[in-house]
Amino acid sequence: MELLAVPANRCKGWYLSLMAPNTKGQAFAWLDPSRLYCNSLALADCVKDLVSPFQNDTIDLVAGIDAMGFILGASVANTLGKGFLAIRKAGHLCVSTQHQNYIDYTGKKKTMEIRLDVLKPGMRVLLVDQWIETGGTMKAAIQLVERQGATVVGVATVAIQNTEGGKWIKENYKFSHCIPEELQRQIDDRYLTSFQAFNNCTLNFFV
Amino acid sequence: MELLAVPANRCKGWYLSLMAPNTKGQAFAWLDPSRLYCNSLALADCVKDLVSPFQNDTIDLVAGIDAMGFILGASVANTLGKGFLAIRKAGHLCVSTQHQNYIDYTGKKKTMEIRLDVLKPGMRVLLVDQWIETGGTMKAAIQLVERQGATVVGVATVAIQNTEGGKWIKENYKFSHCIPEELQRQIDDRYLTSFQAFNNCTLNFFV
Repeated sequence: MELLAVPANRCKGWYLSLMAPNTKGQAFAWLDPSRLYCNSLALADCVKDLVSPFQNDTIDLVAGIDAMGFILGASVANTLGKGFLAIRKAGHLCVSTQHQNYIDYTGKKKTMEIRLDVLKPGMRVLLVDQWIETGGTMKAAIQLVERQGATVVGVATVAIQNTEGGKWIKENYKFSHCIPEELQRQIDDRYLTSFQAFNNCTLNFFV
Repeated sequence: MELLAVPANRCKGWYLSLMAPNTKGQAFAWLDPSRLYCNSLALADCVKDLVSPFQNDTIDLVAGIDAMGFILGASVANTLGKGFLAIRKAGHLCVSTQHQNYIDYTGKKKTMEIRLDVLKPGMRVLLVDQWIETGGTMKAAIQLVERQGATVVGVATVAIQNTEGGKWIKENYKFSHCIPEELQRQIDDRYLTSFQAFNNCTLNFFV
């Protein structure tokens, strides 16, 4: 499919076919979801799928995780007409912060921080990141939000892999993602053939 | 002003009063613009000011710079109904890329990269970042876009300081920013009193 083309009909998750497979080897993530953001309708449909389960929820603020969660998070915030709070990798913010250590999906120990001049007890926050693999990064973000007394309304992300951490999030928080049920297994098992499946789905709708 | 409050009337750049001054010392940036994104109307007005000069331009894609440029860039893309391309710090993308070295605003040598499977010769790109201080980061992004044969329609950012690099951008590219003319000097000289000025402006309109 031409990257910027707009299909006349879209099956659920059609935009996932725009994700890019890894071409650089095992030192890198197994796929790159961010290519789908380049297509305006793909980005809009992806965001629509993410916000849909939260339409009847009260949300005060959308928070996104540094760095790729900023793209989807800001798009979700715009769509909902809410403000956007950046949860950052440690060391960047010039204002008072709280920190949380975590292990990211590559196994590296990292630290995330949140500013102290925005959240207040009782505020309701929707958390957004690009992808949940081990769940370590998202769990740290949840802890930072809750430590300030704010409530995590839910978690929105392109995909949640059924890892221990991914399952913990699904069991404890309302969530939304973009993966059709019949393709979840391929996400969990990191099949590269999933792109083929997504493409077939899309192509069936090109008439 | 209460961070999430919505003023009834807004003077030009009212939302700049929501930026946060540095409270951590000289090892950090002198201010944090990102606090203004937490107010939905501030974010919307900021983006409106940024896209306004480009309303009659043909734009194929919005590109934002890692990491804070992702928030404003995605918001601009959403407002314009365009897709969003992430220009990334080197080492993250699992697909083929081109690199560009640069010196960032802290004086550190860094490398930025752009994927090769999106831009095509003749495509028209609007570049977005949060703030232009030395201009080194934005210049690297411009080089990456142009090296693929795409055209930089313009540059949009909260502020452009009148440094050598900032002036180079202003002289060579169409640009938009959010700083009222009478406050530009304070931005160039990094006066902390600028917050006071912004606040006065805002408060004049609270009736």
